[in-house]
Amino acid sequence: MRIIEGGVTAAQGFEAAGVEAAIKYQNRKDMAMLYSRVPCRAAGVFTSNVVKAAPVLWDKEVVEHSPYAQAVIVNAGIANACTGKQGYDCCRQTAAKAAQVLDIPEDSVLVASTGVIGWQLPVDKITAGVEKLAAVKADTLEAGQAAVEAMMTTDTVPKQAAVEIEIGGKKVTVGGMCKGSGMIHPNMCTMLGFVTTDLAISKELLQEALREDVVDTFNMISVDGDTSTNDTLIVLANGLAGNPEITEKNEDYDKFREALNYIDTTLARKMAGDGEGATALFETRVIHAATKQEARILSKSVVCSSLTKAMIYGHDANVGRIMCALGYAGVDFDPEQVDIFCESDEDRMQICQNGMLTDYDEETATKILSAPEVRVIVDMKRGEESAAAWGCDLTYDYVKINADYRS
Amino acid sequence: MRIIEGGVTAAQGFEAAGVEAAIKYQNRKDMAMLYSRVPCRAAGVFTSNVVKAAPVLWDKEVVEHSPYAQAVIVNAGIANACTGKQGYDCCRQTAAKAAQVLDIPEDSVLVASTGVIGWQLPVDKITAGVEKLAAVKADTLEAGQAAVEAMMTTDTVPKQAAVEIEIGGKKVTVGGMCKGSGMIHPNMCTMLGFVTTDLAISKELLQEALREDVVDTFNMISVDGDTSTNDTLIVLANGLAGNPEITEKNEDYDKFREALNYIDTTLARKMAGDGEGATALFETRVIHAATKQEARILSKSVVCSSLTKAMIYGHDANVGRIMCALGYAGVDFDPEQVDIFCESDEDRMQICQNGMLTDYDEETATKILSAPEVRVIVDMKRGEESAAAWGCDLTYDYVKINADYRS
Repeated sequence: MRIIEGGVTAAQGFEAAGVEAAIKYQNRKDMAMLYSRVPCRAAGVFTSNVVKAAPVLWDKEVVEHSPYAQAVIVNAGIANACTGKQGYDCCRQTAAKAAQVLDIPEDSVLVASTGVIGWQLPVDKITAGVEKLAAVKADTLEAGQAAVEAMMTTDTVPKQAAVEIEIGGKKVTVGGMCKGSGMIHPNMCTMLGFVTTDLAISKELLQEALREDVVDTFNMISVDGDTSTNDTLIVLANGLAGNPEITEKNEDYDKFREALNYIDTTLARKMAGDGEGATALFETRVIHAATKQEARILSKSVVCSSLTKAMIYGHDANVGRIMCALGYAGVDFDPEQVDIFCESDEDRMQICQNGMLTDYDEETATKILSAPEVRVIVDMKRGEESAAAWGCDLTYDYVKINADYRS
Repeated sequence: MRIIEGGVTAAQGFEAAGVEAAIKYQNRKDMAMLYSRVPCRAAGVFTSNVVKAAPVLWDKEVVEHSPYAQAVIVNAGIANACTGKQGYDCCRQTAAKAAQVLDIPEDSVLVASTGVIGWQLPVDKITAGVEKLAAVKADTLEAGQAAVEAMMTTDTVPKQAAVEIEIGGKKVTVGGMCKGSGMIHPNMCTMLGFVTTDLAISKELLQEALREDVVDTFNMISVDGDTSTNDTLIVLANGLAGNPEITEKNEDYDKFREALNYIDTTLARKMAGDGEGATALFETRVIHAATKQEARILSKSVVCSSLTKAMIYGHDANVGRIMCALGYAGVDFDPEQVDIFCESDEDRMQICQNGMLTDYDEETATKILSAPEVRVIVDMKRGEESAAAWGCDLTYDYVKINADYRS
């Protein structure tokens, strides 16, 4: 696996674009298009929120019932959620416009929105945006960059990744982009994510690969514990790599899973690290747990705690808060067996042994907790399973951003 | 039911005290005692956190196995959690000292701690504090006030309440005090709560009344979603009112339940309103739900959301965030049936009808959301059950307090 530049336009046959459509934001790109020159197998995972945005309802239909997908239209600023029939009609009109200008079937067009919940999208601006997008789409790094920038809301950095692997003697590329910064607690995040590949793979296995992969990637991050109404992760595979189509869980499938996992993990970590107001990426890794699920629940509980998050912001190794968050996760364990370490890229230190504080050096702890990437490792000493979860610190800026989001 | 002044010393035979013991804080009261002139029936509910502080383990023993309880020793500053055998031994030494100076059995002494997790208590300061407490305890309003002040950590106001009822021709008094401001998400709250009454009631019914009552009171509040290692709520009943002992669920029991519910609800609301950094009490009432449990889950999800909490701080009626928090609560419902109202003591306004924003006046909404007590009413329109949950806004000060708690 070779890490390369770029994102959704890295794989063969994929084009992208980002333009200014003035949906809510002014003087910045706020609509994106993703397009494949040939029809794609599509797989998707969506929010588990009972309140599902109109684009989520539309995309579920397309992913489940259309043989192929070929384009995605994304807007930032308004989420098109809690918008009833009018909101769903807007999705249809967006798809119809894209189908017309791209000369593809309406039911091969996916749509995605992110922003304020409850407001109706201005359909005329959206359809005008679709025309502009179609006119400028391209398969360049710059076009991919424009698309990912157009999806951003409170994001401070565009997030993308790409890798090359070899399958059946052919070079296969997997690339992706995502946005998301607040209302991030994916239980597939408002995360929107799009992964493209030129791999040839059956629809069923593409969906299965995605479903398996999100469990340990996007579903293991949290910025604020709020599962959005719009969370969407789509994978498009257009087959242009020319490998023999993957139709069973063989070695080739495993290679793709590894590449997909790299892209999803990279994007998920970038999203957590760019959480609203965040100054640090906060990773928790639970090791030697009895079961994989227990490791996931415990690691996620630690990164989700307001108190551990505030502790990271304060650069204060408050072991008690970590123990507390482990304790209320819903897993039964013996607290007096737990060891805890904290580490940065430069230092590592044991701060808890058998459930009690070690006599650790506060100065070193403060140094570790001041790093841009702080890791807490929890050793349960009762099994062989491990899992990681990613979050960020809780800061004044998180409160500021969210006390004043709509204005 | 008549609301009266005071707290834990309101009922006959109860004395209290608060003194400076310099456990961690300097120049302020940090140890409290609660004492009954005669032995009491005791009931208690404790944290569901797997990581239980030493005083929680001690008190569970006393409540479950001792025939009576007669005193409670409380300290603020250090939580005596994650302290192993040494921490439990400290509880025993505290109880032994209290037993000696008060001339009561050791197993009738309850202990409670709140503060930093992981540090050991200074036993010598604790036992010296017990002596001081015994010397100054009294049955006055002032003594009750001293006790509740001594329990405070990041609390900004002391929290107490008392009522009188009549049972069997006798005046019965129920009073209580509590502390708690952060790490508040009781799953019966660090909340410590103590309720005293001179009612005569069997131990079994006292425990049952408490267990029933916390479900809709202390367990329905949240400041930050973190369930503490030390949550403790104790009720002591000393029988001095002289009513015929309550031994069955009759009309007298219902009268006591009503009084207990008033005390617990009042204390729980005060705790939520005094959440760390809070500027407002945030109440959510879900009405016309299909089941009581559904109403509880939905209302609690709304007050627990970081985004609705930041919205209250920003005085911004962001209906989408309320709908979102309802949607991920874990209850299956039709979003297009939901009506939402916001209200203060002065104004009330519908902000959502059938899942969509109403054309409401933003200025009035901002006025309502600027009140010191903001209520959100969610009408599910699908049943007859209702529940309320209480939280507070998420502010810069919450982050400040918790980025810097141990120093």
